[in-house]
Amino acid sequence: MSELRQNPITKQWVLIAPKRSKRPEDFKNQTESVNLPELDRDCVFCPGNEKLNPDLSDAVGQAPQNENWEIRVIQNKFQALEKTTSYRHREFYTSRSGYGEHEVIITRKHNEPLALQPQKLVQLTLQTFIDRINALKKDPNLAYVQVFHNHGRDAGATAVHPHHQILATPLVPPHIHTEMRGCYHYWEAGKTCIYCDIVKEEIQVRDRLVYENEHFAVISAYASRNAFETWIIPKKHKARFEDLQPEELRHLSVVLKMVLGQLYDKLGDPALNFYIHTMPTTRDKHTLHEERSYHWHMTIFPHISVWGGFEYATGIPINPVAPEVTAKFLRGE
Amino acid sequence: MSELRQNPITKQWVLIAPKRSKRPEDFKNQTESVNLPELDRDCVFCPGNEKLNPDLSDAVGQAPQNENWEIRVIQNKFQALEKTTSYRHREFYTSRSGYGEHEVIITRKHNEPLALQPQKLVQLTLQTFIDRINALKKDPNLAYVQVFHNHGRDAGATAVHPHHQILATPLVPPHIHTEMRGCYHYWEAGKTCIYCDIVKEEIQVRDRLVYENEHFAVISAYASRNAFETWIIPKKHKARFEDLQPEELRHLSVVLKMVLGQLYDKLGDPALNFYIHTMPTTRDKHTLHEERSYHWHMTIFPHISVWGGFEYATGIPINPVAPEVTAKFLRGE
Repeated sequence: MSELRQNPITKQWVLIAPKRSKRPEDFKNQTESVNLPELDRDCVFCPGNEKLNPDLSDAVGQAPQNENWEIRVIQNKFQALEKTTSYRHREFYTSRSGYGEHEVIITRKHNEPLALQPQKLVQLTLQTFIDRINALKKDPNLAYVQVFHNHGRDAGATAVHPHHQILATPLVPPHIHTEMRGCYHYWEAGKTCIYCDIVKEEIQVRDRLVYENEHFAVISAYASRNAFETWIIPKKHKARFEDLQPEELRHLSVVLKMVLGQLYDKLGDPALNFYIHTMPTTRDKHTLHEERSYHWHMTIFPHISVWGGFEYATGIPINPVAPEVTAKFLRGE
Repeated sequence: MSELRQNPITKQWVLIAPKRSKRPEDFKNQTESVNLPELDRDCVFCPGNEKLNPDLSDAVGQAPQNENWEIRVIQNKFQALEKTTSYRHREFYTSRSGYGEHEVIITRKHNEPLALQPQKLVQLTLQTFIDRINALKKDPNLAYVQVFHNHGRDAGATAVHPHHQILATPLVPPHIHTEMRGCYHYWEAGKTCIYCDIVKEEIQVRDRLVYENEHFAVISAYASRNAFETWIIPKKHKARFEDLQPEELRHLSVVLKMVLGQLYDKLGDPALNFYIHTMPTTRDKHTLHEERSYHWHMTIFPHISVWGGFEYATGIPINPVAPEVTAKFLRGE
């Protein structure tokens, strides 16, 4: 069976095309997990090498150069966004300066990915995300703060040491813009939030529901672009992740750790990204208008199969496992 | 230096963010090319195993089951598009049947990627693409025929044996739709073709020009989404690849072989995709309108660095090498 499915927010089509012979457990990582030490003296992120990446002077929560640090915020040595000079463009093409900020948030232990970290540390990490978003909001030249995590080579990670990244951009990224527009149109049509309605639908149908508690629903996304694409949606309608209260943050850390732990155990430490979608930092007339209809959320995006020419040529991802199958597998049924 | 650049056709932003210490030759593949045999008895695509994948009965150009075949067209055993049954959706979500065709075009030698094939075989392959597009056009339930090539694991290839794929879809893919709209708006504004104007601009500026001959210009794309993204643009304004004349096809095979050969030699056989963008198969009032402004082209899309969470979260690809640098490198300067 194969089927084209549309993401109800972005309207993106994806092709759910299960390979006949494959079950979800067939996607389990075949490579043995490398046995890493807790401390690697050659790792630039490890304790003892702090001088290679000084703490961000205004980073909140942890005193700079505290030798017992659990978490640090540093500036990326290879900044993807910074002040720039330009090649010849003439008028024909459009470009703009890549002004921005690129930060890295590292946790202490070299061999302790988020899936294996204590809940308290995950919660502290989430709190650090909020602190950094709020700090970066003060720069009027920035439009959006993207928090993301790369784990494993196939997910774009170049360092093994667990780390998160923050890239603040001078424009609202197209995916955020598309989601905001989708939420806004849905709200205008029916005066309800599309993410709230997705949560209601998924809890009723249950086929794609992985887990729920008082504050969050975890689902295998209906139009998953990759196998095991998982959405963490807060039940409370709120536009901004950075407006979370400590109690909500605690619940989120439990849920995030639970989902990453399931993927780690059941798929053998797969390569994955996760990222947060929240509102742009700019609060102009336009975004105030959309603040009412937007609903922040988190996406976990494993890389179990690799996109090929079809995906890049057409913009239609091919996903080899139906989300109903992955949800059942993650529920342990 | 880092810079946001906009694709003039699709309006997609990309971030050109060179890693300070890296030169193009640093992206050379570190893994030694595996020494493959010309014939592998365990390979389902190799001569001797034809019975595992019978020829498509209506495939043009080669007699079915001719044991001296140079090229074969078969149906994909794991069809991504086929007739379907459905999971429970209710009215909340939108889906449609994944009806379509999935074909594989294979060349004879197990260890001869396109970059190393004789020009005559490359030309025969391109002719086979045209034959298959024209054959699939007859199915009124199909809207688009996507020809693409995956080479190497990081480009989504699951088989080592050189092969091309054709996926015909029941809808016009979003990337094609976006390009058609971009070409149409540009045409409406100035009565010229944007691809024709890109060719003029690039030949004048020369910074991103890799090669040109009578029929084609080869450029490192201004807003490259990956390092070494290369466009082959025909100089003659024509909407459809499948309308190419034999003489143009011969020139295209020379150019394609040249570019793939350069990448193979200078980057050590990198993983890559290439694909063709042409008009949809459907010729309704709407597409007739856009047929005047569209310009077919070919994209070569190497995978030298891997996309991470930022790319998937925002839709803004980060490219670590400026196209001006890759063009110079490919020109051998």
